[in-house]
Amino acid sequence: MADAIERLVIVGSGPAGWTAAIYASRAGLKPLVIEGDADPDHPSMVPGGQLMITTEVENYPGFPDGVSGPDLMDRMKAQGERFGTRILASNVVSADFSVRPFLLRTPKREIRAQCVIVATGACAKTLGIASERRLRNRGVSACAVCDGALPIFRNRELVVVGGGDTAMEESLHLAKFASRVLVVHRRDRLRASKAMEARARANPKIEFAWNAVVDEVLGTERVDGVRLKDIRTGALSVLPCAGLFVAIGHEPNTAPFRGQLELNEVGYIRTIGPSTAASVPGVFAAGDVADARYRQAITAAGSGCRAALDAEAWLETQAP
Amino acid sequence: MADAIERLVIVGSGPAGWTAAIYASRAGLKPLVIEGDADPDHPSMVPGGQLMITTEVENYPGFPDGVSGPDLMDRMKAQGERFGTRILASNVVSADFSVRPFLLRTPKREIRAQCVIVATGACAKTLGIASERRLRNRGVSACAVCDGALPIFRNRELVVVGGGDTAMEESLHLAKFASRVLVVHRRDRLRASKAMEARARANPKIEFAWNAVVDEVLGTERVDGVRLKDIRTGALSVLPCAGLFVAIGHEPNTAPFRGQLELNEVGYIRTIGPSTAASVPGVFAAGDVADARYRQAITAAGSGCRAALDAEAWLETQAP
Repeated sequence: MADAIERLVIVGSGPAGWTAAIYASRAGLKPLVIEGDADPDHPSMVPGGQLMITTEVENYPGFPDGVSGPDLMDRMKAQGERFGTRILASNVVSADFSVRPFLLRTPKREIRAQCVIVATGACAKTLGIASERRLRNRGVSACAVCDGALPIFRNRELVVVGGGDTAMEESLHLAKFASRVLVVHRRDRLRASKAMEARARANPKIEFAWNAVVDEVLGTERVDGVRLKDIRTGALSVLPCAGLFVAIGHEPNTAPFRGQLELNEVGYIRTIGPSTAASVPGVFAAGDVADARYRQAITAAGSGCRAALDAEAWLETQAP
Repeated sequence: MADAIERLVIVGSGPAGWTAAIYASRAGLKPLVIEGDADPDHPSMVPGGQLMITTEVENYPGFPDGVSGPDLMDRMKAQGERFGTRILASNVVSADFSVRPFLLRTPKREIRAQCVIVATGACAKTLGIASERRLRNRGVSACAVCDGALPIFRNRELVVVGGGDTAMEESLHLAKFASRVLVVHRRDRLRASKAMEARARANPKIEFAWNAVVDEVLGTERVDGVRLKDIRTGALSVLPCAGLFVAIGHEPNTAPFRGQLELNEVGYIRTIGPSTAASVPGVFAAGDVADARYRQAITAAGSGCRAALDAEAWLETQAP
């Protein structure tokens, strides 16, 4: 016997996925959340998404004393379950949106769905060195907007790795708090736009280290410095600092949907106008997988709500 | 001596305004929130916005057991204050965005600002009868998505007032929970699109009362019925029901900004592309004042965050 056809499947379980689930389950759509499966090689595909590797969240509205990332995600999950969301602990490995109902494949089974919300998020790219991983949330951060205002970084020297617009934005943001910001870039010029470069260069707190990479993050309990390597000469130098902000880009988790949905020029799912509709009618996208710009828990949650309302309205147009 | 020029003023103190304040204050922008001033004639301009007249909020992500509207707003306000947001308890009565710095007028003073986020929200239109006001949150609701799933409405007869697309959407949403939905409309045909009308008419739970208005909401502690008036004959009839959903539209709170900012065809502030930028550079709009479609606390909060990040980036482009 064929499996039942799901009315709505939500792929991903960060703030976007769980908010979509809260709204869809309250609307009686009985959604299935495919929450991901813990896999140390794909940290953002763990259930709960990027907040699971975040300690204190100070900027999610409603928690004046802060909330830990994992605690916030537990709370959202409990809220979705309260209204009847079902959960599958697995990853979607591929999808076929050319057939109706849609087909989603996990390693163990195939799932058929009338409507799909993709909320698989994005991963911050990392330097890929062990000391970066070890000191994550202990001075190593992938988000200046999230962490820059923390007391541990106030009036301290900070290092930003990257050469694009995001690295410049993060440096300008950090310069409001830090005593000095050193931008470490592997080339001898920036990828950033001229305007962003000019703003960063005009800031007296921001300096640049060219042709350099962070070779090691130093510190036992917390970051107390980085080791820089000059990539032309191989020369090593040690720079004391209180924080390392890695701003070398994000990778949206779109691999299972490649060839099925239109992506924008930077690889994120393209949505239509102010809605969350993806290029295939009946498929919606929410959260960081469709947002290269803002990437906050609260913006992801907002778009998850919009996706659920869009999906509910679209399902009303379909034969029952 | 002239007053100091504010760097960023946020007008409005609902979820959009306070989220913008949380982000802007953490970014060191020292924003001033003009939070409104309690005025019983303008219920959505009270500090805290529409959630202040809401009891239980079940769908704000992060609160699995629900949170009261006023409590949620207190928490957001405390969070903004924690990071240094200043507050002015007043209303903006007019604005001049043709001068730099911008000019905002309150009844008692003029405020000059480099950058402004408008987050003044919208008001649900009401029938304007005393019994509707008395039984608000006791069976009278302005939001089916927010309240329709509540146990008090399950398998009960519900009344929706309105004839537009929103009234049809709300009726379809409520039909998932109710035993029967009666749409009361003052004319003999709907304003809704043909597609929405067809969907509502195809739903066996939805019925229509034409040329009728709700003349009185009945009940002591809770809604137990409505009195309908036939507007052609004046004949009165009593209809038992557990809930009354007033879906006759919203009014965005744009009066102080009329003539200063481009509005869209339904009177909401027009924003540019996926950003929150309004038609005047340096003015941003967030929350229900720029959103006729979704109107949820979480979507407003998400757009408040986006407005703060947009404002921060824009301020970086300006001379200090």
